Amino acid sequence: MTNKEIEEGTGFAPRFDANGLISAIVADEKSGEILMLAHMNAEALERTIATREAWFYSRSRKSLWRKGETSGNTLRVSVMKVDCDQDAVLLEVAVEGGGKTCHTGRRSCFYREVPLGGGKQPLTFAE
Amino acid sequence: MTNKEIEEGTGFAPRFDANGLISAIVADEKSGEILMLAHMNAEALERTIATREAWFYSRSRKSLWRKGETSGNTLRVSVMKVDCDQDAVLLEVAVEGGGKTCHTGRRSCFYREVPLGGGKQPLTFAE
Repeated sequence: MTNKEIEEGTGFAPRFDANGLISAIVADEKSGEILMLAHMNAEALERTIATREAWFYSRSRKSLWRKGETSGNTLRVSVMKVDCDQDAVLLEVAVEGGGKTCHTGRRSCFYREVPLGGGKQPLTFAE
Repeated sequence: MTNKEIEEGTGFAPRFDANGLISAIVADEKSGEILMLAHMNAEALERTIATREAWFYSRSRKSLWRKGETSGNTLRVSVMKVDCDQDAVLLEVAVEGGGKTCHTGRRSCFYREVPLGGGKQPLTFAE
């Protein structure tokens, strides 16, 4: 596939990295809030497309993982988008169960702010 | 650092992968629209924090990259967040110049939808 086909074509040709993974951004389908970033191997991607429920690949546990399998907070995918060079996908989801996506019990994994401007100041909690 | 310190602490301890990179999600500070996903090495992250302008590391060109350097579409970062395990950041930005983030001339890199349900149907253009 040429770059033009990858970027402007209608063929889905996910570009997995050297570890066989692509990045998946997860956002709330209604509010647009960014909930988490995870990774998918080919099988996780295929299962997510087939079932409309988010599957990922855990790099630390080295295993396929149906999000929410233990917590009940599964992700129902309404829209999946792919980026220009097809090495990342975006999932627009409804969070089922308790509505929490982060394993710390928070809705989003992005709950701390990094102070800008330099100076190594501490993180601040955004929620 | 323990997992608890990484997840619940106020110390910024970005966890770079085997290639020395972390993922950076870029979202519009006003609309919340997800514009792109890129990667940062330690220097790109440090420059972004210091200057409030987004710097990335290009995996294909193997070089540090100030987003918008040639196009003029620099990214002014208003908020940076880090996720629970500190291997991804989220940048809330204003896109300067022509307001386009994608190198294809579109506002967002996520301009195509992947049909769900299986069956290998073609991508559809979302904008």
